[in-house]
Amino acid sequence: MTTWLDRIDPDIPPADGPAKAAASAHLDQLTKPPGSLGGLETIAIRLAGIRGRPVTDIERPVVIVFAADHGVAARGVSAYPPEVTAQMVANFVAGGAAINVLARAAGAGLVVVDIGVAGTAGDQGPATGSASGARLVRARVAPGTRDLSVGPAMTRDEALAAIGAGREAVLSQIAEGADLVAVGEMGIGNTTSASAIVAALTGVPVAAVTGRGTGVDDPAFERKVALIEAALAMHRLDPRDPIGVLAAVGGLEIGGLVGAILGAAASRIPVVLDGFITGAAALLATGLASNLPDRLIAAHRSVEPGHAIVLDRLGLTPILELDLRLGEGSGAALAIPIIRAAARICGEMATFEQAAVSGPA
Amino acid sequence: MTTWLDRIDPDIPPADGPAKAAASAHLDQLTKPPGSLGGLETIAIRLAGIRGRPVTDIERPVVIVFAADHGVAARGVSAYPPEVTAQMVANFVAGGAAINVLARAAGAGLVVVDIGVAGTAGDQGPATGSASGARLVRARVAPGTRDLSVGPAMTRDEALAAIGAGREAVLSQIAEGADLVAVGEMGIGNTTSASAIVAALTGVPVAAVTGRGTGVDDPAFERKVALIEAALAMHRLDPRDPIGVLAAVGGLEIGGLVGAILGAAASRIPVVLDGFITGAAALLATGLASNLPDRLIAAHRSVEPGHAIVLDRLGLTPILELDLRLGEGSGAALAIPIIRAAARICGEMATFEQAAVSGPA
Repeated sequence: MTTWLDRIDPDIPPADGPAKAAASAHLDQLTKPPGSLGGLETIAIRLAGIRGRPVTDIERPVVIVFAADHGVAARGVSAYPPEVTAQMVANFVAGGAAINVLARAAGAGLVVVDIGVAGTAGDQGPATGSASGARLVRARVAPGTRDLSVGPAMTRDEALAAIGAGREAVLSQIAEGADLVAVGEMGIGNTTSASAIVAALTGVPVAAVTGRGTGVDDPAFERKVALIEAALAMHRLDPRDPIGVLAAVGGLEIGGLVGAILGAAASRIPVVLDGFITGAAALLATGLASNLPDRLIAAHRSVEPGHAIVLDRLGLTPILELDLRLGEGSGAALAIPIIRAAARICGEMATFEQAAVSGPA
Repeated sequence: MTTWLDRIDPDIPPADGPAKAAASAHLDQLTKPPGSLGGLETIAIRLAGIRGRPVTDIERPVVIVFAADHGVAARGVSAYPPEVTAQMVANFVAGGAAINVLARAAGAGLVVVDIGVAGTAGDQGPATGSASGARLVRARVAPGTRDLSVGPAMTRDEALAAIGAGREAVLSQIAEGADLVAVGEMGIGNTTSASAIVAALTGVPVAAVTGRGTGVDDPAFERKVALIEAALAMHRLDPRDPIGVLAAVGGLEIGGLVGAILGAAASRIPVVLDGFITGAAALLATGLASNLPDRLIAAHRSVEPGHAIVLDRLGLTPILELDLRLGEGSGAALAIPIIRAAARICGEMATFEQAAVSGPA
């Protein structure tokens, strides 16, 4: 079978060194002590490396949220019932969810991709959305995954289709002018899937990469860890085969995220990761393309214990640490104003010469 | 002498408990797992406690930057020459400084108060400002302080006048509708002054509260520490007398910050602190009014080593940790979009009932 993976170059070039050097040199000409804007300067230099030129503004940021259901949710691994996935997609479209508020506050567009929601009301017609809500893209690969605790969550073809759909969704946004892509997800049960992926890829014990998700109690948490351990023992996954790991224990929205991350990175558009689940997707994606982490920006570090491990493996320092654990792209949206501020520092500040300010004595 | 301190009630009431409880209860009705927005929810609850009602937006934030010169700057304690203070005020008015970029990006107004700049070009006429730059308020108490290493930086009357000018400046902004006040400063030499204040108030050794400021080298850093130690030995300050400490080793802009912080807090307007110098001012202000820290929001933790000590004494957790060390209110401005997002979460999200989303299983 020929897949989109055969059609794109998995060798993403490394960050553009001369562009980073140019941004760094410009920052040192601006009316402030060199390096005094700390992490903002780091972001500005990173943006230049990604885009291949100093970046002076973020004009059309977009948040893309992939939503899908998980067969394993029937096993009581979440504090919420599975129907919440579809209900929250409706909430996104109506404009009432946290990510709606945070994307609006950040001046970002919001797109929700139904890549595998079970039992959404309504047909599979064209994209919709309310004025204040998210635009809904219908790209359902399957009505949710199968239960990863009894067999593979997806076939390899389904996993590849999800990656392809995610890539198409992000390329469509980039074609419309998006100059920064923040990624998020919605899927009851998906921290179970993400913990299984991260344990499979890193070899870190399941208990160390598993958290409370939406807020399960102690007995449910212990069941969640035991279920993931048993599933990994059953699936016998090869960490060098990201597609196999994704198919066995992943989710359709995680596949969508993998495709979106790869598609944006190959297009030299900065990708802002949200929390643990988008991080797990990024870790899968690093197995499919070279130099990927250089193209990523970590918005925050969540309270999910596996997230710190993922960020460490990706070599990323998060911008925010606000003890978030919502998902939806909420942390990624919150980081957009800071990333935009970093770009505008490059674009709008006066140099010492322009402002006639004296340099160091 | 009768001062403004005799005319206002220094007993600021504690945070409004019922308003905080109402905000917290509302947050738990919204379509997200309870507490899953972490630090954002903490900010929303804090805003409610300050304003006495749940806060649903930040509509007119303002950044107020106090600028003044320091006699001690002649001693080589800064990497930059003293004339940079006036040059940077001109840069603020022209719109080319970091704080201009960051205030604009945050949708905040920007006011610069010349409370003691030496040798600014131009007269002491009415307030001015360009369309894209800061509004300049002329409230000069003196053309800079005297050298704190040879005698008191100010008289008590000058210190009180600076506090009064700061209070007037902030009350004027609140009268015009400001619903959040972020404070910043500009003054070559003022980390020396702030380190002396914090050492005097806390008893922490000078070397532990002194940093590199704008970026001095090792020999200059050692001179800075020795100079502050010698000055404190000479002045023999009483930590229970904040006005005495401010007069002896403070700065006019630090006095202005004390007044601005007290004025906004007494008006129930949230005060967003920037870095080490605004923190030192807040620490002075806590000696002049009860319950003050409840009214404050710490924007970030800077790389100045004394800042963490100040935040600990104030009992404040910073929103950001971006290794900033610029001042000007830059970190405070960067935090505004996050504070606004916290308010809008309270104001714009749908409840479980409104969105017909199922609660925990």
